[in-house]
Amino acid sequence: MTWRATIVTLYPEMFPGTLAHSLAGRAAAGGQWSLDSVNPRDFATDRHRSVDDTPFGGGPGMVLRPDVLAAAIESTGMDRPRLLMTPRGRPISQARVRELAAGPGLVAICGRFEGFDERLISGCDLEEVSVGDVILSGGEPAALLILDACVRLLPGVMGHDESGSDESFEGGLLEYPHYTKPSEWRGAGVPPVLTSGDHRAIAHWRRMEGLRATRERRPDLFAKYVAALSSGVDKGPKIG
Amino acid sequence: MTWRATIVTLYPEMFPGTLAHSLAGRAAAGGQWSLDSVNPRDFATDRHRSVDDTPFGGGPGMVLRPDVLAAAIESTGMDRPRLLMTPRGRPISQARVRELAAGPGLVAICGRFEGFDERLISGCDLEEVSVGDVILSGGEPAALLILDACVRLLPGVMGHDESGSDESFEGGLLEYPHYTKPSEWRGAGVPPVLTSGDHRAIAHWRRMEGLRATRERRPDLFAKYVAALSSGVDKGPKIG
Repeated sequence: MTWRATIVTLYPEMFPGTLAHSLAGRAAAGGQWSLDSVNPRDFATDRHRSVDDTPFGGGPGMVLRPDVLAAAIESTGMDRPRLLMTPRGRPISQARVRELAAGPGLVAICGRFEGFDERLISGCDLEEVSVGDVILSGGEPAALLILDACVRLLPGVMGHDESGSDESFEGGLLEYPHYTKPSEWRGAGVPPVLTSGDHRAIAHWRRMEGLRATRERRPDLFAKYVAALSSGVDKGPKIG
Repeated sequence: MTWRATIVTLYPEMFPGTLAHSLAGRAAAGGQWSLDSVNPRDFATDRHRSVDDTPFGGGPGMVLRPDVLAAAIESTGMDRPRLLMTPRGRPISQARVRELAAGPGLVAICGRFEGFDERLISGCDLEEVSVGDVILSGGEPAALLILDACVRLLPGVMGHDESGSDESFEGGLLEYPHYTKPSEWRGAGVPPVLTSGDHRAIAHWRRMEGLRATRERRPDLFAKYVAALSSGVDKGPKIG
């Protein structure tokens, strides 16, 4: 079955965007995934095709109506997770991307204007997801980023050269640093261990550098990593 | 002066992508910002136009060469911050986006393949930036997302209806929930305070909801918010 993404967006012309090219573009051409979009404006019920209205309680901006958005979202079927792109959401993680890539696809709901009516979230069983602690002009760039992360994990999409088993986040750590030719560049060489031919020493160095980078740059990830290690130790060996 | 973004990318055809439309597209048409790209392949020195090579120490994937990438990056001039899109980087924040938007523009360096030669970072004075703890097929979707966040803050880009003074992250908190018409939808109403006409009560409710959402959903942001409050109190009133 083809992994299927549907974008609920007022700007369907923004898609496929970056996903038309390179890895994701080749995978779409090869039938490994497909992309379509639904425009909430097609579900408006007044003659102005309104999708938004003023917020209760006052304030700047317009809010997307729950009735119009729900009609658009529910037109995409019931079989896929529905992700709402919002800065109030749970930060996307590589673990969640893996789950999404292993499923039938996803529906990504993108907003513009001030935001969504809160009742839409439980009303349409939406998963609130955020991508970076920044404010976008709309959810579309976030949806593209999440789709890019999912599509590269679909079976057959990455070639051997592109497959990164040692990548950042996959083991809960940041990746170690890379070096390639020239071996001397602007007075800087490469760490001697990497040209030693000692594969055990290289593996050890890379592991230590990944740990060090994570501890220094991302104490939040490092704390999670240590907690997961500790909980693994606490559980002890599996019996039976 | 026009705010100027340059993307260093092996896939210049991915741009302007989403930025051709809506707010960012209108702003580019209005001359408020401009976008161009540089392809490292144009700076390769062999007849195959190679930009990458195998990693020292072995392992899967190819690594982008520091000499070729440096030539591409340095062709963009010296006057703008140079952001390297990498999962090893510092998570992008709204505070950093504000700084970038207030400057002359930025250079965003996007990789494909396994990664960059580590020496490039100090060699070209790169700022390592990450966007969400996920692995992308390349840096391009991350660059688009950061540009989207910057461009909306440029002077004259957002209209009155689009300007969100109460937005998530701007005060270090997530935003409060929104409600619009219909006032009753699928059996759910709106919080009575929002239709009370009592503007002080509404402002208080929104503030409390923003605090509650942040504490429940993003304990990391909440801790930072509390620490900033405490340090403000510690400093006491400004004298002189």
